[in-house]
Amino acid sequence: MAPPATKLTNLLEPRARLVPAAEAEGRIGRLQAALRKQELDAALIVQNADLYYFSGSVQQAQLYVPAEGEATLFVRRTVERAIAESPLAVVPLPGVKHLRALVSERYGALPARVGLELDVLPVNAFRRYEKLLPAAAFADISSVIVALRAVKSAFEIELIGAAAAVADTVCARIPQILRAGLTEAEFAGKVEAEARALGHQGIIRMRAFNGEMFYGQLLTGVSGTVPTGLDTPLGGTGLSPAVAQGVSFKRIARDEPVVFDFVPVVNGYTADFTRMFVVGKLAAELQRAFAVALHIEHEVAAMAKPGVVCRALYDAALAIAADEGLAAEFMGHGPGQVRFIGHGVGLELDELPVLSANDLALAEGMVFALEPKFVLPGLGAIGIENTFCVRSDGIVALTTSPEVIYEVD
Amino acid sequence: MAPPATKLTNLLEPRARLVPAAEAEGRIGRLQAALRKQELDAALIVQNADLYYFSGSVQQAQLYVPAEGEATLFVRRTVERAIAESPLAVVPLPGVKHLRALVSERYGALPARVGLELDVLPVNAFRRYEKLLPAAAFADISSVIVALRAVKSAFEIELIGAAAAVADTVCARIPQILRAGLTEAEFAGKVEAEARALGHQGIIRMRAFNGEMFYGQLLTGVSGTVPTGLDTPLGGTGLSPAVAQGVSFKRIARDEPVVFDFVPVVNGYTADFTRMFVVGKLAAELQRAFAVALHIEHEVAAMAKPGVVCRALYDAALAIAADEGLAAEFMGHGPGQVRFIGHGVGLELDELPVLSANDLALAEGMVFALEPKFVLPGLGAIGIENTFCVRSDGIVALTTSPEVIYEVD
Repeated sequence: MAPPATKLTNLLEPRARLVPAAEAEGRIGRLQAALRKQELDAALIVQNADLYYFSGSVQQAQLYVPAEGEATLFVRRTVERAIAESPLAVVPLPGVKHLRALVSERYGALPARVGLELDVLPVNAFRRYEKLLPAAAFADISSVIVALRAVKSAFEIELIGAAAAVADTVCARIPQILRAGLTEAEFAGKVEAEARALGHQGIIRMRAFNGEMFYGQLLTGVSGTVPTGLDTPLGGTGLSPAVAQGVSFKRIARDEPVVFDFVPVVNGYTADFTRMFVVGKLAAELQRAFAVALHIEHEVAAMAKPGVVCRALYDAALAIAADEGLAAEFMGHGPGQVRFIGHGVGLELDELPVLSANDLALAEGMVFALEPKFVLPGLGAIGIENTFCVRSDGIVALTTSPEVIYEVD
Repeated sequence: MAPPATKLTNLLEPRARLVPAAEAEGRIGRLQAALRKQELDAALIVQNADLYYFSGSVQQAQLYVPAEGEATLFVRRTVERAIAESPLAVVPLPGVKHLRALVSERYGALPARVGLELDVLPVNAFRRYEKLLPAAAFADISSVIVALRAVKSAFEIELIGAAAAVADTVCARIPQILRAGLTEAEFAGKVEAEARALGHQGIIRMRAFNGEMFYGQLLTGVSGTVPTGLDTPLGGTGLSPAVAQGVSFKRIARDEPVVFDFVPVVNGYTADFTRMFVVGKLAAELQRAFAVALHIEHEVAAMAKPGVVCRALYDAALAIAADEGLAAEFMGHGPGQVRFIGHGVGLELDELPVLSANDLALAEGMVFALEPKFVLPGLGAIGIENTFCVRSDGIVALTTSPEVIYEVD
């Protein structure tokens, strides 16, 4: 005889942090205010990261948010899990085609103007909604959503702090793992195993179409100088052209820079982090570039506070790099150079604010990675990256490992 | 003094298999035939997996395929890498807005009817193309592309075989890794490290909107009975509701089923694989379900050959499960049950054919995973999965580990 089935709620991970009801209510209330401002009757949220943000659950679901009143999470599968995870009202959805009848029944009318995540929603999925609600007009609410999500609550900052702590812990273990002769792939596997045991969720979400990232960029020596199609200062060779970034089978050599650019993700939330390692000792030129990266980081961090626009931070960083004669190597080299020095992090790796030549002002609660880096052709990449939270009077680092070049024998 | 910069071609991974010119030409020729049949002037390919399939490179690029004549890979970044990786003509693209002028210049005219990947292309990206080519009509060519990609060449089957070999190798190492008391997350990290060292690319591509998978589903005991929103027979608790699948912090116990459902990906190509492990011994009920899974697998494999429709295989599997009194547990239980017994694999994990109640006929060169599995509430999940290639007279398994329950002490 089989034992009785365990109740689903008893099977869910007890260490997981559920999104509290007050948190979800606040988020949905802010979305509703934006919907009213755009004169929309409702939003339909379907993308994983947004679903998690507003509902606390990532089941096969459609989140219906009216401009006023209670939101409903319509769930195809699994209903029981959505009920266990989400503080919102959950209604079973036998299939997407039933959405029209269920919305009509629950809200008394169909929406005339509906906001959708048009930055991520595929065309064919959009067309299904057009057929489902033929009388409705659709509007893009993606910029509203990413702006709302850019400002984190205390709850979210705590979770990003937990991700940051995973990066710091893994960093501290690297001296026991790193040795010359390992391939980048072998080294990465051992490092990633440490992160996994600490609760790294594996999946890294990016909002950009085609955006892909696997744990980060663990690059050694000249691997750090190989540019990719990604908008990142470092790319790496990758194991094949199919994923033209990240580790390769190159063996780690003595005295070359080992970039530990690492994306920890816990409870859905990501931080971003870079420290430098070397088996032996780095050349003076690389050490100097590292010192300049630290100088840039500290200058930018000293300037950053609510109201300061991203452009000011970006320009200040560029000016220092130029003063030090490293403009051509800053944030990549040649065709690999990118035009930003940092980016927001949260449920996705590519959030606002982007620290580039744009006029978005920092606001309290924003969380971003600041990553001054240099690519020295023939030598490798070097730099620093920490995740910072914007407070009322400045920014505070959530990643706190010592800012040194870690030398391993 | 820094050493001179190494040439990019010398930095690319020497063990990587580039897509041969003849291979790319054949693929593009078949796409062009389909374009002509749909009376389209051209296709514009932009999604990572499709870009890799047709061009051999995954840079920030737009692949323009005229209905007749030479295709062009327009590359924003990195041009040098695209040239090194792709056998196609590569033309630098300063930005997407320049595409119109470059196409016009290179082909003498702008296309009037353009095929796009509308199953994956986000609405806002689509609207940019509408603005860029205001006189053009756009059509969906995604079903053409997935149908073309479903039939693999000898080159592709060899690469899927290399991925399958990684699964078999990792499987053989698990008895040295598995022990009671490890958390699922710790166990997964160690197993994944083995795969990484062997060249697992990390990134697993899925075509479905919101599709996400991280190495597979490593589930133990009752974790295997927790359903998710995914269309998979097994789900798992996950580490938090943010990624409601896969491993948790549950500790592995003696005498419970350990599902090693593993997705190896090498050189872009994926296989899919499941074997069962246990520290100690499994209950008779689980052993019996395993025997039924093997029986289903062997019956379906014996039937499968070119011309057989998916529905016939699916129905045969269901009939055996029902005969054995395990219909309610087959391919998931209760709300977690799914209506397929396998799926195509290739550059994406969710390819054609889907072994469900549909009338697609198997064709030589198709590659699919066949995964009869049972979920026994209160006990766990159990089953088998191999990746098969369709040959002229039947199917051949690419994953070849012994089909036993691996008992570890």
